[in-house]
Amino acid sequence: MHFTSESGSDGVSERRFVVDGVPGLLWQPDGSALGGRPLVLLGHGGGQGKEGPRERARRCVTRFGWAAVAIDAPGHGERTRTAQDERFATEIGELLAVGRPISAWVARHTAALAERAVPEWRAVLDALEAGAGEGLGPVGYWGLSLGTAIGIPLAAVEPRVVAAVFGLAGHASLAEAAGRVSVPVEFVLQWEDELQPREAALALYGALGSREKSLHANPGGHLAVPDFESASAERFLARHLPCGAR
Amino acid sequence: MHFTSESGSDGVSERRFVVDGVPGLLWQPDGSALGGRPLVLLGHGGGQGKEGPRERARRCVTRFGWAAVAIDAPGHGERTRTAQDERFATEIGELLAVGRPISAWVARHTAALAERAVPEWRAVLDALEAGAGEGLGPVGYWGLSLGTAIGIPLAAVEPRVVAAVFGLAGHASLAEAAGRVSVPVEFVLQWEDELQPREAALALYGALGSREKSLHANPGGHLAVPDFESASAERFLARHLPCGAR
Repeated sequence: MHFTSESGSDGVSERRFVVDGVPGLLWQPDGSALGGRPLVLLGHGGGQGKEGPRERARRCVTRFGWAAVAIDAPGHGERTRTAQDERFATEIGELLAVGRPISAWVARHTAALAERAVPEWRAVLDALEAGAGEGLGPVGYWGLSLGTAIGIPLAAVEPRVVAAVFGLAGHASLAEAAGRVSVPVEFVLQWEDELQPREAALALYGALGSREKSLHANPGGHLAVPDFESASAERFLARHLPCGAR
Repeated sequence: MHFTSESGSDGVSERRFVVDGVPGLLWQPDGSALGGRPLVLLGHGGGQGKEGPRERARRCVTRFGWAAVAIDAPGHGERTRTAQDERFATEIGELLAVGRPISAWVARHTAALAERAVPEWRAVLDALEAGAGEGLGPVGYWGLSLGTAIGIPLAAVEPRVVAAVFGLAGHASLAEAAGRVSVPVEFVLQWEDELQPREAALALYGALGSREKSLHANPGGHLAVPDFESASAERFLARHLPCGAR
């Protein structure tokens, strides 16, 4: 694995890498080894990039001693937008401007994104694993909205992911993959989510195949997830990512 | 306030009292004063009595230094059952035996129970307040199922309750009182609850008037609430009951 730059502050190293053309960031305790350490894959939301989860990543490192990694989703961050990506950005703006429901449209587009993103996440895991002397520690996934549209199909096929925080998503197109997720899940829902219909999000929670799955719903819209849910997600991951290295 | 007996172990005192004919138990750190200390009202489930929440009460004391109190609901524990209570116990057994839905029946009965129980809880709070030299500390409520059928109308009228853990309940008859609850709530729901239809429980969460309210749903039936939800309820109460005494 090739790191193109490194920066650090407060005991957290942040390194930039590229795997098969996909740029990412890896955070870990300064001077530490990756091997054996819990690793959290951070999926960013729509319109963001790998820098979106930086604050979350730094908390994973400073509070728990985990490593964390984020990559640009297809058409996001530094990556070239395809004609389809450009069309999506234009058309979603138009739909929002006239107050039309966008959830089916978003679901269709993100399903196409996820098809590209899942093998990219797996290639990044392979590269990190190859570089971690004693092998990777337990791997968690944490991503809402677009991060869930990608994370559910990822967790359905990737056995290295042992626990996941999902939410702010709900479309029937995700139900089949959700049924094949078997790891513990914490699922965040916003009761007045203007982008994801409540019924669809409840149905997606219901469709998850996991024996342990907790739905955490709170009032407010898509962007109003309370801060205490981040602390809850961290505790959830801490329960399921046994720490084998400090 | 007159205490009729006292026992203690592991630094937790447990005292029995009777207020207006309603027997209760008060737990607090051995040798401590009640005044200024967070106090948790523990509502028991149907068929239980004031001893039902004993383990929960002891954790409140040992882990957080709070006081905790439970009383027998009407027709429960040591209290005389009315003819109505007896009829209820017989008929619910018959309905369950033939697999008939019981939720409307339970709701009707528990609404009548709550009408009696709310003034009893308030009288107990008055008595505790009169006995606490510097006044009561912040008061929380924690009760599921029957404890919620009583707790929601209580929290709707009792300004001393500043936060509440509810759940395992859902009936339209509670919606009006729920709308008048304004304190932070954590609401527990079991996705396959055989006693409370999921839709009714979701609607009851939706009806709560609180600005801060979190729904925590998990798989399984009425009695399968995961242990980690107890720890979550404690953290929720700890966030909202500032400790003024140790």
